[in-house]
Amino acid sequence: MTTDATSTTVTDEAVNSLAGTADPRLRELLTGLIRHLHAFARETRLTQEEWERAVSFLTATGQTCTDTRQEFILLSDVLGLSMLVETINGDRAPGATESTVLGPFHMTESPVRRLGENIDLVGGGEPCAVSGRVLSGDGTPLPGATIDVWQADGNGFYDVQRPDLQPPGNGRGLFTADAEGRFRFRTCVPSPYPIPTDGPVGDLLRATGRHPYRPAHIHFIASADGHAPVTTHIFVAGSDYLDSDAVFAVKPSLVQDFELTDDPSLARELGLPNPFRHARFDLVLERS
Amino acid sequence: MTTDATSTTVTDEAVNSLAGTADPRLRELLTGLIRHLHAFARETRLTQEEWERAVSFLTATGQTCTDTRQEFILLSDVLGLSMLVETINGDRAPGATESTVLGPFHMTESPVRRLGENIDLVGGGEPCAVSGRVLSGDGTPLPGATIDVWQADGNGFYDVQRPDLQPPGNGRGLFTADAEGRFRFRTCVPSPYPIPTDGPVGDLLRATGRHPYRPAHIHFIASADGHAPVTTHIFVAGSDYLDSDAVFAVKPSLVQDFELTDDPSLARELGLPNPFRHARFDLVLERS
Repeated sequence: MTTDATSTTVTDEAVNSLAGTADPRLRELLTGLIRHLHAFARETRLTQEEWERAVSFLTATGQTCTDTRQEFILLSDVLGLSMLVETINGDRAPGATESTVLGPFHMTESPVRRLGENIDLVGGGEPCAVSGRVLSGDGTPLPGATIDVWQADGNGFYDVQRPDLQPPGNGRGLFTADAEGRFRFRTCVPSPYPIPTDGPVGDLLRATGRHPYRPAHIHFIASADGHAPVTTHIFVAGSDYLDSDAVFAVKPSLVQDFELTDDPSLARELGLPNPFRHARFDLVLERS
Repeated sequence: MTTDATSTTVTDEAVNSLAGTADPRLRELLTGLIRHLHAFARETRLTQEEWERAVSFLTATGQTCTDTRQEFILLSDVLGLSMLVETINGDRAPGATESTVLGPFHMTESPVRRLGENIDLVGGGEPCAVSGRVLSGDGTPLPGATIDVWQADGNGFYDVQRPDLQPPGNGRGLFTADAEGRFRFRTCVPSPYPIPTDGPVGDLLRATGRHPYRPAHIHFIASADGHAPVTTHIFVAGSDYLDSDAVFAVKPSLVQDFELTDDPSLARELGLPNPFRHARFDLVLERS
C-alpha cells in the first residue's frame, strides 16, 4: 500500500514488485526502466493530460505497424535510440567496418542474386556499379561471405512501401562473395528520401520542426563464417542531409564516393554505359 | 553527423534536433524523454536483441488496444507510472479526498441514473448501499455535484469486457447530488479481480512473478462547479490485495468499511434486505 503520497514511494513499490522475476537480466532491465520512467515524470512534472496524450501517441504508433511497416522502429530511430543501441553494441576493432542502424525496411527476405546482377528492376535512377571485397580483420579475403543489400528506388520508396509501382525484391539482393571474397552488383545511385511522415512519427517531426530526410544510402548486412556480421550503410559522398540525418545514422567512415569512371572495357563487363559511376569499398569483419 | 562512436554524441545530436520545436513544453518533455531513454540504454548496455524484443512488446501492446481495451494504460498502471502521475498532480489540501488512478475502464459514458438507483443490473454479488455527501473543503455541501461511478461485476469484469454477459452500463452510473449535496446508490459489494492477463501486460506480470489482482474497489469521479474534480476509488476494508495492488493505487484514506447495518426502515427506504452492508463516506473537493 502507498502509505503516503510521496512520489518516490510508488517508485520503490514498483521496483520491489519485481522481486519474483526469474530472469535476473529482465529484472535489471525493468528496474532501470521504472527508475528512469519515473524520474522523467517527476522531473518534468508530467500532467495527466500529457500522460493521456502519450498513451494515445503510443497506441497510434502500435496501430500504424503492419507486416510491412514498423512505426516503433521509426520512433526509436528519430529519438536517436536505435543509433545509440548500435553504438553501445558496435564496438569494433580499428579497421573493421563500422555498423549503423538496421532501419525499419529490412522486413522481407532479399532475393538471392548472382554477382553483377542489377537490383534496380524498374530503372529508378542513374545506373551505377557497387563492388568490393569482404575481408577478415587481417586482410584475408572471405570467399562465400554473404552480402544482403537493400535500398530505396529513385523516388525514395522501398519495394514494400509501393507494391503498386515496384515488384517485390526491387532494390534488394542477397549476394555471395566469389573465391577472392569479391562482390559486385548494379543498381541506381540512391537519392535522399524522407522517412514515412503519414503516421505518428511524422506528426512528431512536424511538431519539432524537423525535416524527415535521410541522406542517400544503401543498406548492407555482411556475414561470414567465424566472423561477427555487420549491419551498416554506405552513404553517397556529397549527398544532402549528411549533416542532419533524421535518424542520426551517419558515420564518416561509411561515406563513399560514387566516382565517375571512364573505362569502356569495365563498363562492357558490368553491362553499364560508359562513363559510369562506381562505388568501391571493402567490408571488413571481425573474427567472432 | 555522428563524428565519433561515443554514445553521448548521439544523445546530444538527438536533443539538439529539437531546437526548432515551436512549443517550449513539448521541447522540455522530449528532451527529458531522450535523456532518460538514452541513459537507460547506456546504463543497462541494452543489446540489439533486447531492443528488438522491446519493439515487439510495444507493437503488440498497441495492437491489443481496441475501443474497449487500453493496454498502454494497463502497462503504465503495472509499472507504477499512472499512480506516480496521479501523485505528482494530486496534491490536495488536508481533508480533501485523495485521488488515485483512472484505470483503463472509464471508456464509455456512464448512464444518467436517479439517486438510489441500482447500478448492479445482473445481480452480481452481495447487495449493498453506498451513500455520502459531496462537500467543499470548508464542509459546505455541493448541491448539483456529479458523481460518476463504475465498478466490475461480481465475477470481476466490467461491462465492456463481457458484453455477452452484461448489458452496457452495468456497474456504471452518473448521479447528481441532491440539494444537501447527498448521493446514494445501490450496487453489489465489489470483489478483488485480476487485470486482463491475456495480452502483453499479462506476459509481463507472469515473467516478473507478479499476481494480477486488484483489491475490491469502486471508481469515482466527483465534479462540482468552482471545484477541481477528483478521480478516485473507494477500497473495501479487509479486501485481499490491499497491500499488493497490481497497479499500486491504494491509499489508506480511501479504504472504507462496508458496514453490516441492521436498520429495517432504512433498508426499506433503500430497497434492500435487512441487515445490509452500507459504505458511507464524503467526497471533499477543493475550490479551483
